[in-house]
Amino acid sequence: MICFVTGNRHKYEEAKKLLSDIEMRHIPYPEIQADSLEEVAEYGIEFLRKKLDCNFFLEDSGLFISHLNGFPGVYSAYVFKTIGNDGILKLMKDAENREARFESVIAYYDGEIHLFKGICKGMIAENAMGKKGFGYDPIFIPEGEKRTFAEMESEEKNEYSHRGMAMKKFISYLSRY
Amino acid sequence: MICFVTGNRHKYEEAKKLLSDIEMRHIPYPEIQADSLEEVAEYGIEFLRKKLDCNFFLEDSGLFISHLNGFPGVYSAYVFKTIGNDGILKLMKDAENREARFESVIAYYDGEIHLFKGICKGMIAENAMGKKGFGYDPIFIPEGEKRTFAEMESEEKNEYSHRGMAMKKFISYLSRY
Repeated sequence: MICFVTGNRHKYEEAKKLLSDIEMRHIPYPEIQADSLEEVAEYGIEFLRKKLDCNFFLEDSGLFISHLNGFPGVYSAYVFKTIGNDGILKLMKDAENREARFESVIAYYDGEIHLFKGICKGMIAENAMGKKGFGYDPIFIPEGEKRTFAEMESEEKNEYSHRGMAMKKFISYLSRY
Repeated sequence: MICFVTGNRHKYEEAKKLLSDIEMRHIPYPEIQADSLEEVAEYGIEFLRKKLDCNFFLEDSGLFISHLNGFPGVYSAYVFKTIGNDGILKLMKDAENREARFESVIAYYDGEIHLFKGICKGMIAENAMGKKGFGYDPIFIPEGEKRTFAEMESEEKNEYSHRGMAMKKFISYLSRY
């Protein structure tokens, strides 16, 4: 059994579909101000590793927009809460380079730290479209698509998804044994 | 003698003018993702307190814009580095409520944690003006003024300044003895 340290039941249930032998543990841990998700995740592991008696993992994700030098990046949750999709669309008004990527990092601790990363490339839409999903989904169009994540069913979204990809790498690591 | 934990020589020299008996210590400490400068500062103190053999303080500051729900707030440094003053002006385009405030928090540790806060109210300019100062100075007009911080000499700016105010409270606390 592996513990998934998160306060987000939605993330937990998504992960549970791919990896049944997990338990949710809601233990708040500090998220540091850093440039990469890897640094945030590793710091979280260091904080948690003496507090848990099971192998465990945590997940952190963010949206990185090229034209905005990687903003909102590791601060995606805070930026969504304050300026939201409207704010991002204002910042991207008339921007020619609309490239963006979602990243997800899973950090797993089993005596050592292991990192698994998933990336989903795409672009920022001109306008918000769709009602499904959450967060930045209405303004993110994955590569090879014309629809935003918020216009897709979750199964379809999960095929492209940064988080799904990180989970698959993690599961592949676990199944080596 | 008191240690000022900072990597910013500019801040150190500003403080040194007000409080001569200090020494700069450049010890990186984690800045957590939180809603208030106080939380960030307190976490920094907890991290540092076993690493130093002197009484010490640190300082953290941010720009809080009402129309943007407090954005960029405790992430001001990161936001400046990515979207900069141009980004803030885009987000504030046509905004009627242009209220903003600079906040500075000094956290001092002498066996206990003491917090000193300085606030400077003002508004976000329609355009960047002035070349002096640094960071958000060209877009911030303090209350009762028509010029931005970047249009003032540093002595004049320091009279209004959030950081100067926090320092004065801190010095007043120290001089109780």
